[in-house]
Amino acid sequence: MKPSIPKGTRDFSSQEMVKRNYIFDTIREVFRNYGYLPIETPSMENLDTLMGKYGEEGDKLIFKILNSGDFLDGLKDKDTKEMGAKEMTKYISEKALRYDLTVPFARYVVQHQNDITFPFKRYQIQPVWRADRPQKGRYREFYQCDADVIGSPSLLNEVELIQMIDDVFGKLNVPVIIKLNNRKILQGIAESIEAPEKMIDIAVAIDKLDKIGDDGVRKELIDKGFDNARIDKLLKIILDKSIVSVGDFNFEVSHNINESDARLAVLASKINSDGTFLLPEVFVKGKNELGYIVHNVKKLVSSIKIEVDLSLARGLNYYTGTIIEIQVDRSRCKSEFTSSICGGGRYDDLTGIFGLPNVSGVGISFGADRIYDVIEELNRFPQSVSSSTKVMFVNFGNNEAQYCLPLVSELRKNNISAELYPDAAKFKKQMGYADDKKIAYVVFIGGDEMSKGVLKLKNMTSGEEKEIKSDELIKHIV
Amino acid sequence: MKPSIPKGTRDFSSQEMVKRNYIFDTIREVFRNYGYLPIETPSMENLDTLMGKYGEEGDKLIFKILNSGDFLDGLKDKDTKEMGAKEMTKYISEKALRYDLTVPFARYVVQHQNDITFPFKRYQIQPVWRADRPQKGRYREFYQCDADVIGSPSLLNEVELIQMIDDVFGKLNVPVIIKLNNRKILQGIAESIEAPEKMIDIAVAIDKLDKIGDDGVRKELIDKGFDNARIDKLLKIILDKSIVSVGDFNFEVSHNINESDARLAVLASKINSDGTFLLPEVFVKGKNELGYIVHNVKKLVSSIKIEVDLSLARGLNYYTGTIIEIQVDRSRCKSEFTSSICGGGRYDDLTGIFGLPNVSGVGISFGADRIYDVIEELNRFPQSVSSSTKVMFVNFGNNEAQYCLPLVSELRKNNISAELYPDAAKFKKQMGYADDKKIAYVVFIGGDEMSKGVLKLKNMTSGEEKEIKSDELIKHIV
Repeated sequence: MKPSIPKGTRDFSSQEMVKRNYIFDTIREVFRNYGYLPIETPSMENLDTLMGKYGEEGDKLIFKILNSGDFLDGLKDKDTKEMGAKEMTKYISEKALRYDLTVPFARYVVQHQNDITFPFKRYQIQPVWRADRPQKGRYREFYQCDADVIGSPSLLNEVELIQMIDDVFGKLNVPVIIKLNNRKILQGIAESIEAPEKMIDIAVAIDKLDKIGDDGVRKELIDKGFDNARIDKLLKIILDKSIVSVGDFNFEVSHNINESDARLAVLASKINSDGTFLLPEVFVKGKNELGYIVHNVKKLVSSIKIEVDLSLARGLNYYTGTIIEIQVDRSRCKSEFTSSICGGGRYDDLTGIFGLPNVSGVGISFGADRIYDVIEELNRFPQSVSSSTKVMFVNFGNNEAQYCLPLVSELRKNNISAELYPDAAKFKKQMGYADDKKIAYVVFIGGDEMSKGVLKLKNMTSGEEKEIKSDELIKHIV
Repeated sequence: MKPSIPKGTRDFSSQEMVKRNYIFDTIREVFRNYGYLPIETPSMENLDTLMGKYGEEGDKLIFKILNSGDFLDGLKDKDTKEMGAKEMTKYISEKALRYDLTVPFARYVVQHQNDITFPFKRYQIQPVWRADRPQKGRYREFYQCDADVIGSPSLLNEVELIQMIDDVFGKLNVPVIIKLNNRKILQGIAESIEAPEKMIDIAVAIDKLDKIGDDGVRKELIDKGFDNARIDKLLKIILDKSIVSVGDFNFEVSHNINESDARLAVLASKINSDGTFLLPEVFVKGKNELGYIVHNVKKLVSSIKIEVDLSLARGLNYYTGTIIEIQVDRSRCKSEFTSSICGGGRYDDLTGIFGLPNVSGVGISFGADRIYDVIEELNRFPQSVSSSTKVMFVNFGNNEAQYCLPLVSELRKNNISAELYPDAAKFKKQMGYADDKKIAYVVFIGGDEMSKGVLKLKNMTSGEEKEIKSDELIKHIV
């Protein structure tokens, strides 16, 4: 039997681990700098915590855990002859592996609501599992790095999250575009053409406008059951830059959404008197939010490019306001990467599913595995990313080895990673080990050196060798 | 429905997380200082990688994952009427959650043997899952922190691992006793009384000697089927301090076990001519190894107490040499903790089960969850263990908030964690938030301060407030 691991899962070697940790550490440091605190939830959740939260397709992709002990007990007195797998699962499985960090987080907030100070800013870096068909860049176990703030409707949270995205990708040296949209804008457009339930079809059509033109969009929408009058109206809205452009949208608004309701109504009617449409208030509200965010973010970010993209329809199922998606900016680097590497948005009622309604939250999630693939593709992992041993002592035999032990200890006490080769193996083998492990310095202490109280120190990068006093070793390690 | 999590699992709050990370970071730093490199393996392994490796009881405690898709497909054409859960599991589950880090590590070494430089020093800090009955201090999901070196028979590895244990518990300020034994000694004793298969019964009996005396041990062994002649012999060996004491054992031996075989034979015969028993060579070899380790370790460790304990029978299933167990030293602190908080040993053929025989390894495993409980019990988490926000800006309204944003950014750029309260909430609420989150400094910037280019800085520990220039804020944060 040749040992192997389940498809879609991965082993990580030391070299991969140090690169992965570089990404996690960078993200974690930014989260901390912005006042987000860590929590962790169990890998397993009760099955009914997860089921029904990700749509029917999602339910199928949740990994279920067989009840321990005699799981057949659950099927006693049940007629299993006609029972399908879906039905049987209820009786033989009570637990499942988490599918994302968002639903467990909502469960956490509701369960611990009395111990939490709101607004609650938390981050969470843990693996999730999905029974997706494995393919390049898609794994069955992968890490999510989430930051959310819950219990505050303020748009300053969105501004802050976008600053964090800017910081993370700035530090990681990956040029990115941040695409922004607002669920309320999409909803407003759908309502304005009296097709409120067709928001996604509309977003998909808008997305293709550049590629297939007005006529192509019209054809596609007719296939989806839209009539020509509605399509005319939709195209007019989309093509009228003065209506959808956010950059030009120059207004003053309180960051507290509730306070600004009155002004929004005014704005809505203004647009009506200027243009052709009576745009629903929700559209203006969404545009307003987007405008506030873009206005403030522009002054604060340094490395990201901001793009308002009305076709962005990410995770419409629970988002209610801002929608964020980050892609590699291929105009600024040579990348083949077109998928999203980070995303998020605002949800007004995520905790409602667990019995705590009307708590607004907003969050982002970094896809560490994809970010890894991008940095690898761009060859931008810093040289310094390595956690290998700094100093190795060659082992010339038992006496020499015992003589070295206190010297090795001394280095470690000074936080310099050091090791003594454990066996008195052939010199060539020991040096090969030092090479493979990319060890920076090698120390030689044979009988001669022992009697003189000195050692030979070899710099493995430059090849330089020098004899120094044993008690001065630390000074020579840089 | 009140949300909850599966029994035996835990949510970790921010306060718990920072304490847990303190333990993980301490262990990780020591691992690194000794030249161990990180790897990670998937949470799921193929079921046949795990089954049969932990005994029959262990097999039951492995969490199995239901095949995704229609798991009933696996039962097609099977007569399920008389099928028990154990048999059925084979057809509906192919994967399982890892039960420890050792077996996945052995699988990793065999699978990647061509990419690994030996001796392979790796560490691994990941959760494991066991379907044990949950009780105080025993969880169904918990972390193991393992360091192993594989491919080197040198006893210097044991010396190094014990130094690491000393370092970790020294840094964590937990006084511990390290108990040492050697599987070969137990084997030698069992062989010397012609009961080689009863090693564990013997270890258990030795363990009770202090409590129940010679007669008690004799009675217990008779119950186990030993005759009086063997018991006489056993007691003579155990009670003869000159035979079992390791501290007095003063000998010279090469640290390379193979090279020292000849000398060991001499030693064995010496003991025979001095004493009463022809002790098997394996006994002397074990004692010899233990002596070498104790001799070297004594010169290098600072905070641990070392104790040779011939009754230590930990994990006899795969250990073949040194056995290590760490307990809280209750003579040096007020603890109720009697279970082991770290343990390990040498195994000569762990990778053999996956087809790579004769590769000797030795490793230790820290039980992070139990260590957490001990430090909590002793109240020894350092005050400085906290990762909360350093500076909070009070939000007095939209204009003031927008004025603050660049100042908050400036702090973050200098790696000082800072946040602006997102809503213009009541002053009392905002200050309550700062208190709850144990934020060190609070900044006030109202209209007055804005026009003067100053800010009010409150030290939340001392209560002191001062007015300073906005651009000098960083200088005042310590």
